[in-house]
Amino acid sequence: MANYKMILQYDGTRYRGWQVLPAELTIQGKLQDVLSKMAGYQVEVTGSGRTDAGVHAKGQTANFHLREEWDEDKILFYLNQYLPEDIAVCEVKRVDERFHSRYQAVEKTYLYRIHTGKIPEVFERRYVYDYTEPLDVNRMRKAAEYLCGTHDFKSFCGNKKMKKSTVRTISRIQIKELPGEIQIYYTGNGFLQNMVRILTGTLIEIGDGRRTPEDVSEILEAKNRERAGYTAPACGLTLLEVIYGKMVCNK
Amino acid sequence: MANYKMILQYDGTRYRGWQVLPAELTIQGKLQDVLSKMAGYQVEVTGSGRTDAGVHAKGQTANFHLREEWDEDKILFYLNQYLPEDIAVCEVKRVDERFHSRYQAVEKTYLYRIHTGKIPEVFERRYVYDYTEPLDVNRMRKAAEYLCGTHDFKSFCGNKKMKKSTVRTISRIQIKELPGEIQIYYTGNGFLQNMVRILTGTLIEIGDGRRTPEDVSEILEAKNRERAGYTAPACGLTLLEVIYGKMVCNK
Repeated sequence: MANYKMILQYDGTRYRGWQVLPAELTIQGKLQDVLSKMAGYQVEVTGSGRTDAGVHAKGQTANFHLREEWDEDKILFYLNQYLPEDIAVCEVKRVDERFHSRYQAVEKTYLYRIHTGKIPEVFERRYVYDYTEPLDVNRMRKAAEYLCGTHDFKSFCGNKKMKKSTVRTISRIQIKELPGEIQIYYTGNGFLQNMVRILTGTLIEIGDGRRTPEDVSEILEAKNRERAGYTAPACGLTLLEVIYGKMVCNK
Repeated sequence: MANYKMILQYDGTRYRGWQVLPAELTIQGKLQDVLSKMAGYQVEVTGSGRTDAGVHAKGQTANFHLREEWDEDKILFYLNQYLPEDIAVCEVKRVDERFHSRYQAVEKTYLYRIHTGKIPEVFERRYVYDYTEPLDVNRMRKAAEYLCGTHDFKSFCGNKKMKKSTVRTISRIQIKELPGEIQIYYTGNGFLQNMVRILTGTLIEIGDGRRTPEDVSEILEAKNRERAGYTAPACGLTLLEVIYGKMVCNK
């Protein structure tokens, strides 16, 4: 058995998300189809985490096992030849047998792009969320300070039946103001279902004046999804990078 | 009568080009539909030039006449509200009655993007042309020197029945080499039908070794479309900017 790690990009617009679903177009499903065709037997792909329907990725990481050793470049070439044009594999590397792209991920960075300009964005329209009300970035930055650190993010979890721990650590939230666009970068050790989108919806409600930065402490304490802001649309979100610890040595 | 100049962006992927055609989706057609609905009578839009089917624009310029004076911002807002999401109007300005967006254009800049990287381009895939053979940029730059200046570009004209002058002046061709991408910027006083795409196809054939930079002089002299290179695909081409002389004073 040989274990391969790959780095992926995708435009999530057409997809029902990462996770394989019967009779639905998904990223994991597409990857498994092409890899299984290549190998001649069913290959399972494990992602660093699921991305929601419509969410994009520039650095999603996944791994899969093959029964025999394959040349890394051959796999890379085969995948890019047979995958649709909205999914690309940037890198394939043979890794230690024990490498698991979900369990061993130590940090992830997401980017949420809010288009605030008055002129519609033609070329990036699939990758931004249009928000035309004025947003006070300083209020959003102040709110972000309350969110950073280790907290129970139950109020920011889209899955109400979540039974496992909802404690996560956000190490950094960086908010960049560009002409006509606000970019929010989230880095943390893991994110719950819809969490980045609910964090963004909450920051938007603070930025447009509906809530105050100080409300964040109360929302966190409430441990109740109803108290946080709305779920910002999937189209504005991109998974940028997944970081692994040193123990992931290459073969 | 009031004359308005507008600056436009569009993703040309879905369109049969700029020029209105019966029962076809065109940029000019869409603009005329929306403006006519706004005005309540048929409005004609004049572009700085036609773009081919599939060609994009970041700074196409056009003008139109209205029977009465309208607020510029109102027109801008109306257009962006009713145009499809792959066309945007960036600016609307009332201009001198005599302004004509085609006759008075003194210079245009086009960008042709060639994706040369091995990893498919996911997010910019609609705006680049994939070319996987190695290209020698220095050969292409040398060839570009022969193309600059005032020449009869008949060999680079896609319309074989062209009766008007095929003499044009290219003031500058800049070739930028980025990781996985070659960008060619063309600036000139005007371009013939398909000219930028034929220039690009010829530069590619020089870059990949099929022709030499010195072949350009002979191609120009031949005044024969058959002698130049192939017509590079429309998707890689974007009209970046149209420059007007000083006489275009605002109202």
